This record gives sequence, structure tokens and C-alpha cells, in this order.
Amino acid sequence: MLDIGIVGGSGYGAIELMRLLNQHKEVNIKYVFSHSKSGQDIKETYPHLQNNIIEQFTSLDVETVQCDLIFFATPSNVSKNFIPKLIERGIKVIDLSGDFRLKDPTIYEKYYGEKPAPQSVLDEAVYSLPEWSNVDGSSIQIIANPGCFPTAILLSLHPLLESDLINKDTIIIDAKTGVSGAGRTLSQNVHFGEANENFSAYKLGSHKHTPEIEQYLSQVSKSDIKVTFTPHLVPMTRGILATIYVDLKDQTSEEALHQLYKQKYDDKPFVRVRDLGEFPTTKEVLGSNYCDIGIYVDEDRQKAIIVAVIDNLVKGASGQAIQNMNRLFGFNEDEGLNLLPIYP
Amino acid sequence: MLDIGIVGGSGYGAIELMRLLNQHKEVNIKYVFSHSKSGQDIKETYPHLQNNIIEQFTSLDVETVQCDLIFFATPSNVSKNFIPKLIERGIKVIDLSGDFRLKDPTIYEKYYGEKPAPQSVLDEAVYSLPEWSNVDGSSIQIIANPGCFPTAILLSLHPLLESDLINKDTIIIDAKTGVSGAGRTLSQNVHFGEANENFSAYKLGSHKHTPEIEQYLSQVSKSDIKVTFTPHLVPMTRGILATIYVDLKDQTSEEALHQLYKQKYDDKPFVRVRDLGEFPTTKEVLGSNYCDIGIYVDEDRQKAIIVAVIDNLVKGASGQAIQNMNRLFGFNEDEGLNLLPIYP
Amino acid sequence: MLDIGIVGGSGYGAIELMRLLNQHKEVNIKYVFSHSKSGQDIKETYPHLQNNIIEQFTSLDVETVQCDLIFFATPSNVSKNFIPKLIERGIKVIDLSGDFRLKDPTIYEKYYGEKPAPQSVLDEAVYSLPEWSNVDGSSIQIIANPGCFPTAILLSLHPLLESDLINKDTIIIDAKTGVSGAGRTLSQNVHFGEANENFSAYKLGSHKHTPEIEQYLSQVSKSDIKVTFTPHLVPMTRGILATIYVDLKDQTSEEALHQLYKQKYDDKPFVRVRDLGEFPTTKEVLGSNYCDIGIYVDEDRQKAIIVAVIDNLVKGASGQAIQNMNRLFGFNEDEGLNLLPIYP
Amino acid sequence: MLDIGIVGGSGYGAIELMRLLNQHKEVNIKYVFSHSKSGQDIKETYPHLQNNIIEQFTSLDVETVQCDLIFFATPSNVSKNFIPKLIERGIKVIDLSGDFRLKDPTIYEKYYGEKPAPQSVLDEAVYSLPEWSNVDGSSIQIIANPGCFPTAILLSLHPLLESDLINKDTIIIDAKTGVSGAGRTLSQNVHFGEANENFSAYKLGSHKHTPEIEQYLSQVSKSDIKVTFTPHLVPMTRGILATIYVDLKDQTSEEALHQLYKQKYDDKPFVRVRDLGEFPTTKEVLGSNYCDIGIYVDEDRQKAIIVAVIDNLVKGASGQAIQNMNRLFGFNEDEGLNLLPIYP
Repeated sequence: MLDIGIVGGSGYGAIELMRLLNQHKEVNIKYVFSHSKSGQDIKETYPHLQNNIIEQFTSLDVETVQCDLIFFATPSNVSKNFIPKLIERGIKVIDLSGDFRLKDPTIYEKYYGEKPAPQSVLDEAVYSLPEWSNVDGSSIQIIANPGCFPTAILLSLHPLLESDLINKDTIIIDAKTGVSGAGRTLSQNVHFGEANENFSAYKLGSHKHTPEIEQYLSQVSKSDIKVTFTPHLVPMTRGILATIYVDLKDQTSEEALHQLYKQKYDDKPFVRVRDLGEFPTTKEVLGSNYCDIGIYVDEDRQKAIIVAVIDNLVKGASGQAIQNMNRLFGFNEDEGLNLLPIYP
Repeated sequence: MLDIGIVGGSGYGAIELMRLLNQHKEVNIKYVFSHSKSGQDIKETYPHLQNNIIEQFTSLDVETVQCDLIFFATPSNVSKNFIPKLIERGIKVIDLSGDFRLKDPTIYEKYYGEKPAPQSVLDEAVYSLPEWSNVDGSSIQIIANPGCFPTAILLSLHPLLESDLINKDTIIIDAKTGVSGAGRTLSQNVHFGEANENFSAYKLGSHKHTPEIEQYLSQVSKSDIKVTFTPHLVPMTRGILATIYVDLKDQTSEEALHQLYKQKYDDKPFVRVRDLGEFPTTKEVLGSNYCDIGIYVDEDRQKAIIVAVIDNLVKGASGQAIQNMNRLFGFNEDEGLNLLPIYP
Repeated sequence: MLDIGIVGGSGYGAIELMRLLNQHKEVNIKYVFSHSKSGQDIKETYPHLQNNIIEQFTSLDVETVQCDLIFFATPSNVSKNFIPKLIERGIKVIDLSGDFRLKDPTIYEKYYGEKPAPQSVLDEAVYSLPEWSNVDGSSIQIIANPGCFPTAILLSLHPLLESDLINKDTIIIDAKTGVSGAGRTLSQNVHFGEANENFSAYKLGSHKHTPEIEQYLSQVSKSDIKVTFTPHLVPMTRGILATIYVDLKDQTSEEALHQLYKQKYDDKPFVRVRDLGEFPTTKEVLGSNYCDIGIYVDEDRQKAIIVAVIDNLVKGASGQAIQNMNRLFGFNEDEGLNLLPIYP
Repeated sequence: MLDIGIVGGSGYGAIELMRLLNQHKEVNIKYVFSHSKSGQDIKETYPHLQNNIIEQFTSLDVETVQCDLIFFATPSNVSKNFIPKLIERGIKVIDLSGDFRLKDPTIYEKYYGEKPAPQSVLDEAVYSLPEWSNVDGSSIQIIANPGCFPTAILLSLHPLLESDLINKDTIIIDAKTGVSGAGRTLSQNVHFGEANENFSAYKLGSHKHTPEIEQYLSQVSKSDIKVTFTPHLVPMTRGILATIYVDLKDQTSEEALHQLYKQKYDDKPFVRVRDLGEFPTTKEVLGSNYCDIGIYVDEDRQKAIIVAVIDNLVKGASGQAIQNMNRLFGFNEDEGLNLLPIYP
């Protein structure tokens, strides 16, 4: 049994880790850390966890904590302060926050408002979209778990860029997320009265997932990629749908593009390429670790549209973190994650 | 491994059985029956089940079907036509519909609009609220699984009536359900435009769960109980909350009543009596088999309020049916059901 | 033209006053006051008011303000500090908060946590449920506008108590409100992630509308009335539905009770008694000043159920305040309020 | 007073016409027609219209009906059968359906599945986006009211094409609509259980508003325009938000583009160009006839994004129809339409 700790215990990422790890056979949750709620009963904050094995939030002491792996489900600019010491002590970490995703410190500072972790520690971190990374049974110390939007977007675009099929300046990503993407912290735009029965675009041209997307795509395509990325807020709790528009370099049939995706994801248990003419909806992956992808090609105009959906808290955060753990420690990739979507 | 079949495959009860049984170690789903969709791919109707083990809906032939147990997740007036033959052939059934719940044929006819199953078959059926029934490892052939509202209500009222604490004519049940309670069949009142951002009372004095509640409470209290039961429709997908008002016979303190409930449900894994002053919300049991109960007593006026919540599709239907199966076949009571609530 | 001011300009009550008064022919909005946002553009807080006539929030100075009437749409414990001076200066006020509703200072202190306004000022205030009060063209200085829950509840119960038809100890009020009832102030329970797809009971036995309801009913019935009142939170923005249970003193037919309500509300333009067998839903009054009422009688058991719906921000707050103004100043009762419900 | 009739009385467009015309000083609703519900009380279908002036639905007889103007708020392929006779008899019509929008009968047949009205009648129809059409006080007989998506989209794109600022092959429209856009007719995808907490793309490359958009833009730009148009369904009742991506021909600053829009819409009462850096949300126009527009330019990459919102049932249907009527008959453009958005 792997002894693990969860940091950021009062947030949505942490309770989703608890829900999923509750089904995992190889893991023992040893700690649930929360700085602000240390010493309090977990069920006071989360009454749905009436009979949780770990009863109280505790405070993380990086000098003394004893376990094999720690998940950071914290806001930005937190994990970078704890992780250097932890890996020094031989404790592996999977970071669900953005602190270790960007390789360029200048860009980190621009989007996250602070200096990142020391370069040497940053260099040890591996950005792992598990379908396309290689972390299996490795000695990697820090996994940077992809952001929620990037997960749906990169799974959609990876095959196109790897196969060099598109004009690289034409990528337009119109993404939509449920409100839980904004976390549990109170703010006016996610106050029920404002968010309910409302739909909005936000952070045009400035969302911090933009450089994460561009960095990954640039690596895959071995060229400098810029994207247009517009996030929107949907009046529902969970789910991301990304509608991605690209111009195809050459005449490519819908059938051929569909075959490419089927082939690329044939052996990936959590990506389901949908039949031609069928487009996934967010509810069809709710509560599960699936990413479903639909393909459309306007053959006359050489334009393709990729529609991808995930549950932002599962494949977009905690589920993917567990998938990364499973690969890192050599467990079955779907251990703890073989849940069907909850429908309706 | 138990071979099972599910009838009513295109409805919400059936897909919830599939979701939960997917986590069950002792069961093999052999058939998913749907009269109207026989021969069609399940994923056409339910795209979230892309990679279902059973690919197609088939048609139930009671003469030839081979399995150990069949769940009926059908509308009213369906299972009564199939079950007599099945039990004759030694196949056990758990009926999620109302067909075998009422013992009095006159009342069945009044509320369900048709004649019930033959009395001899009706007599074999056991109404099983698993916390209070005794079906463990028994030879019972037909289990009548309680209705969604009755589940929350009877778990709330059983201790009060068993202990003879209340004035029996004073029971008022104000119950609220999410829209999935109305099933998948289209109708104007559950059309999104009408149900969304709307709250309504319905079937005052005439809901078919009324006689089911009264029959059970009358048995427990060994007297003739009538209740006032008002269901309401809440603009959300899942969840039932019942607010139950009773007059206490004698001066009973809140503390004492709370202790009674704690004691009664101490060894029942799926009923969580909440701390005094705390009242459960529907989201705190979402997707799980829990029934959470909160207690309030107005000591001056000798009135008590019980607030109970369940997920109508889990503890109120498919989860409870599996719980009944687990007891009937001697599996662990929580096998396939040890899922934490999905939050948020 | 009446010059008016609105205090509490950043709250939901105030913007609803602006929306409705925008249709009112006899009124000129001269000031929108907000202590916390004084000097800021209104459209920064409320972008839907792009072209508001009053562009900025200002600060209320009770010594110098010049107008005929001021609406207070403020939280508790605010208006009591301003109103004494205003009426001294001859400016009338309609108070949408609870500060002037309770006549007994001890009870006010118990439920509102502070001492109320000076008794002499409190004595001048008239609690005005406009269907049953008499404020027409009067010299009244302070109108205490009823709370949202009390409005639906008192319109439902007034006929029964005035006609002395019920056993007075049996009143049970199970009330449900949309989330806007909690106002615009951030708190965890109205955070989208927690309130959406969730239904809950709250403040059992301790809601501050309880004494307001009891005070009014006691006056009507000329006896000491206590009620059981349980509020619930519905995952929708607007709307209140109250389900009210009473025991009838004598055998009363459903038909007779229905006739009584029809008669009592025949000449009241905003109360619509629905046909027998029909129960109103919250959406059917959305955005309008209507209160719709449905009647059910269980004749065998001598129990009646009244179902009433309002839009909590219109008839439950700002609409009713305008209705009170219309009566006080002799305008047509429905001036500015003849809007049909917005459906769907 | 203008005597008018409304066809399609049981649909959402018709009841929205009733809500808005209820505030209109120059119009008398003489008929509410419904083929399927003729002879029935309107309040049976729409209980919110308890006290409607017109009590019953009647059936339209084109030979005998007497009024000045008829609104068609009907599904596709209905109005084309009635309008030829009506205009022959001198009755003007405003058609909210798609029957008279497309000038090319082949395209109509492709997208609407039937042959259109006779060419001579089609030729008389004027497609009127009132901000850019000229129908004021004219002798026009048939106004084709724009579709809901086209309204938001064409108001966004008109200035860009008129000023010839963009590369015409690069227009990508990612549009999102509330569920009421699908009307009142039952179907599985707008069943509450399926639509709630779900977000989906639909009709990629095949929505019938595509040719309407392309026809209009081609006229404005005097060239053949093709667009990529992807509609999405949002789990809310009302509202459309369109996010429109274009490549700018030349270096254009955000400031300059914003000025262009401000200028173009300066004298149009219902289009509100928002301040730079601010993007409208659907709730900010809810229930009103406004179209709010936000502008973003990525100056480095010469790409612009236009975000526009409307209430699909008001500016996207019934409100705009009344605006067209006001211009056609010389009333004030905002008569009956000067309602502020309902917020929250």
C-alpha cells in the first residue's frame, strides 16, 4: 500500500481525490492537509464525508511528514514553496496546480504574478498528459499535472500536430467550463445569483492556461505555436467542452481524420473517439475519467472542428492525477478510475 | 458470479443499475432488456456507455431467459405481467416498480389504474426496506423494492412509530424531488423550459406513494395510519429531501430523540444520523446509497421535524435494489455501493 | 412627479426597484445611495444598467437629502439608524428591511441581534401588507414592507384566521425560496458549487420571519398564535412557494373554502386564486407582482393545504414596496406593476 | 390602435409577444391563433396568463380575419401557406419563422426540407434587421424577422464587413443558446434530465441559420461569404452569446475597432457597445431587447474577437418583431420595449 497525503484539503480537487482514491486498492490516504482548517473535523467543511477515515485536517510539515507521495491540490503559488524540500526528502509529488507546468520563468511570472520555483527544481518536473507522456515506473520526482482546459485541448490537438496536418497559425479554441472550475473560493462571478442562468466569456487573451497550451503544442510540433483561446463560464457545476477550429494544410477527408484519431487513441483507455457525425456532451463523461472526442471536417473549405469533453474535476484534475500516479507506480492505469459516468 | 438481467433498459433506473453493478465483484450483467429498443445498440441511446460490456438491448423472453436474478426497472403495470412466469421458472426478481408493493388489490387498482398481479404471486412478494426487513440469505422469490419517496420517509418515521412516540394522526410529509424522479419519458412538466427555474407542488392527496407509506407505517405501528403527503418538484436532476412534521405524544427532549435515532441506525451502514443542529442537504448524498437524517424538536410545543435526504436514483431505487440483492444472496451489504457522494 | 431615493443601491432589492420604477409614470428616481460604493458608476457593479439615468451611487446624508420618499432596501440593522431623522425632516420612507416590522423590542433583539429603533419611531411605523392594510392616501410616515416569506404566507392565512376556521396550534408552514432571497452578499451556502443541484432546509425554528408571521396572525385572530415554519433553499434564482398545512375546526368542503378565497381576493388585483385542482408554480409569477394561491382540502381528515407562490424580489420585496407607495400616494395600485410574468 | 393577431399561440414566441405587447400603447391584441389548441382557454396552457384579455385560442381563417397586422410565431413551413392570401387581402405580416428569410429557393429547400412560398411572394418579403434595414413607415407587406442566432451575429459582423476590414474566409462563429431556443415542443435533448447540467455542440455545419447568415453578409460585403458556424446548447432557459473570430486584413488597433463600433451603433437604442476590456454576459440583457457587444483585438496576430449577447426570445425573436412593427408603422422604436433587463 502506498501512503499518500493530500494538500489543499478544503478545495474541490482534494475532495475529488478522496472520492476516487476511496475506490483505489493500492493506496492508503494517510493525511489530508489544510493550512486554514488544520485541527478541524473534515465533516464540518464537507458534511458528505461523515464517516471519513481521516477525521481531521492537519497541517503539512515538510520536515517531518512520512509518506510515499503527496498530491498538491492547491491554488497557484503554493506548492512551489513546499515541493523542493519534499523531493529532497525523497517524497514524490503530483502537483495539480500550475506551479511546475511552465518551463520559462518569465512566462510563469507574467501569468502567475510571482517568481516560480528554483530552476533546478523546475527542471526535475515532468509535465505529464498521461496519454502522451512516458512516466511509467520511472524515477521521476515531480509530476506537473495538466490544467483542466489544456487536458481537453491537448488531447484534441496532439494528433493533428504530431502528424503535421494543420496551418499552425489558425488554431482557435473556444472552451467552456462548468463553474466548479473556479474552485471553492467565494467571488461575485460565481455567486449563485450571478452565475446561474448566465453565460459569459472571460479572460480573453489572458488566461494562464494559454502559455501551457502553447508550450506543449510547440514541443509536439517542434515550432513556435500561438493559439487563440477563449474560455467561457457555463451555468452548471462540472464539465468542460472545447470546440477547436483549425485549417487543414491539405485536402483531408473527414473519414481519414477520424481514422487517424481512432488509431492514435486505440490503446488509450480513457480517450473515446466518437463515431463520425456524433459529438460528445459534457454529461456523457460526468464523474468519470473519460475524454470523449468528436470530429468534423468541412472538406470544401479544408477546415476541421474537434469537439472534446471532460469532467474538469476528474480527467481535468484529480482523476488524471491518479492516472499519473498509476503509471508512475506501475499500477493498472485505470485502478480507482473505472467508474462509469453518472447519468443523468 | 451471479448472472443477472435488467428489464427497462432504456430508463434511468436501469442505467443506474449498470453504473453501480459495474463496481460489484459478485455480479455479471448478462442481459439488458428493452422492449422498445430491442436490437439497438445501447450506446445509441446512452452515449456515455460507449464501451459497455453488453452492447445491445434485447427482448425479454420469460420462457427461455437463463439467469439467477432479474431487476425490473420498469414503469407501473409492466413487471406484474412477467414476474409470475419467471418465479415459476425459479428466477428471482427484484422489482423497482410499484407492482408488488401494495398488498390490497383494491388500493392498487385505485392508484395504479389496473388490476395487480394474481393474489398468490402478490403474496410471495416481500416489501423490503433493507434496514428494517429480514431477507438475508432467504428463499424469497420476489422483492418489492420501496419507492423513492417512501424510502426517505419510512427510514425517518420507522423509529418514531416503532417506539410509539407520536400522535398518529398528525404526520405531515412535505417531500421534494429532483426531476429525474419523473423518469426519461417526455412530458411538458419536465420539459427544460418549464421545469428549469421553477418549483411546484403536484398530486396533492393523490400520489401513488401515499398508500405505500400508509401500509408500511400501519404495519410498524399495528394501527391504521393516514398521512398527509405533498410531493414537490425541484429544478435539479437528482435528490429527494423530505421534511416530516409530527406531534410528540409526550414531552421528549431533542437530545433524547436524537439518541434514539443514533441507536436505531448505529449498525446500518447507509443511514447517517447527523449531529444535532445539523441538517443534511441533497448534494451531500449525491450518487451514493446514503440516507442522511437530521432531527429537530420544538420542546415547548411538543413537535418534531425530521429532515431526510437520499439520491432518488440510488438509495431511492437502484442502489437500494442492489442492497436488497446483497442481503438476499449473502454478499457484503455495501458491495458495489461503497461510493462516496460526488461533491460538488 | 414624486422624487424618490433608494438606499442599499448595490443590493438585489434596489436594482429590482429600479427595474420596476423604470415603468412607473409618476416617479422620478433622484438618488441611488450606496454607502460602500459611493462615487462609483452604477454600471460597474451592474453592467445591465448601461444607460441608467442615475449614473453614480451616492452617499445618503440624512440632513440634506431632498426628496419625497426614500426606499430602504438594506440589510437588517441599517434603516433604524437613518429613518428617525428622515421622518423628522418630513421625508416618508418605505422600509424593505426588517427593522420596523416587529412591535416588541425584546423579540426584535432576539432575532436581529441589536436593539431596534426608539419606541416612539417604531410606533409610527405601519406594517403594510397592502391587500389587508389601510394606508391609502394617508399621512403615514413609515411603512414597514413585509418580508418575502411572510408575504406569501400571510396572504394565504389571512382569510382562514379572519374567518376563524382553523385550530390555531396546527399551522405548519413549509416554505421554499430561490437563492436570491439570500441577497448579493457572498457566502458559502450560496456559492454556485454548493447551491446548484442542491436542496436544503435551514434555520429550523429560528428564522427571523417567524415572529413577523406570528405577530401578524395574532393580530388578525386576536389570540396568541405560534407557527411551525421551516424555510428551504431551492436551486433557482427567484421564487417562493409556501405549502401551508392547517387543521380545520369544522367540516368545511373544498368548494366552500375555495369560494371564501375567491371572495376575499376578488377585488385585489395582485392575488390570483387559482381554480380548484390547480396549483401555482413559481415560474407562473416570475418577474411579476402576483401572488397565486391554490387550495386543497382533505375533507375526510379536516385538513387543508394552501399553496402560494410569489416572486420573492417583486411581490416579496420591491414590487410590494411600490404597491405600498402607490396606495400611500394615491396612484393606481398597479402603476409600474402591470407586467406579465416572464415565461419561460 | 393597431389591431393585431398572433399565430402560433401555444409557442414561446407568441407568449413573449403577449408579454411585450402588454406594455405597448398603440396595439390591441385581437386574436391569439393556435391550430392545435383552438377553442381552449389560453390559461390552461399558460397558467401565468390567468387574466389575459384574449381568453381563448382561435383558429386562423385567412379569408375572413380582420386586422392590420399578423405576427407568425410558428415553426418552419407554416407561414408560407398563409401569408400569400393575407397580403392579397391587405393584411401586413411579420414572420418570426424562417419561411421568408432566404431568397434562393434551392437553399431553402435544402435547409428547410420543403419548397418555399411562391417566388413572387418571396420577392415581396423584406429581411429586416431593424438597425440596418429601412422599413420605416413603408408600404412593405411582409417582414422576415431575423433568426435568433443571426441577430446577434449580424449585428456583430455588419460593421466589419461594411468597412471591409476582415479576410472574408476566416469568419468563425461559436454560438451558444439557452434551451428555450428549441421551443416548447418535446424532444429528448431538451428533456430536463438530459439538458440540465449538460453542455453540447449540435448541427455542426448544417444549422439552418447558416445560409441566412451567409446571405446577409454576402449582401453587405458584395461578395460571396461562407462562414463556419457552430451552435451549442447551454443549460439555461434564455440567452444567446456568440463568440466571433475574424482575421483582420490590416493592422487595426483595439481602440480603433472599438471606436468604429461605438460610432456605428451610436444612434441605435438597442445596441450597447461595451467599454473596452468589458464583455457582456447573457444575464445582462435578460428579458430586454438589448444586444450588447464587446470587442477584443489581438494586435500582434491581427485577430479580432467579437462577443455579442441577446435574449433569444426578445431581441432574437418577439422583441425584434415589435421593433420592426414600430418602424414599419412609425411608432417610437422602443415603444413596448423599454424594459430593463431582469437581474438577477
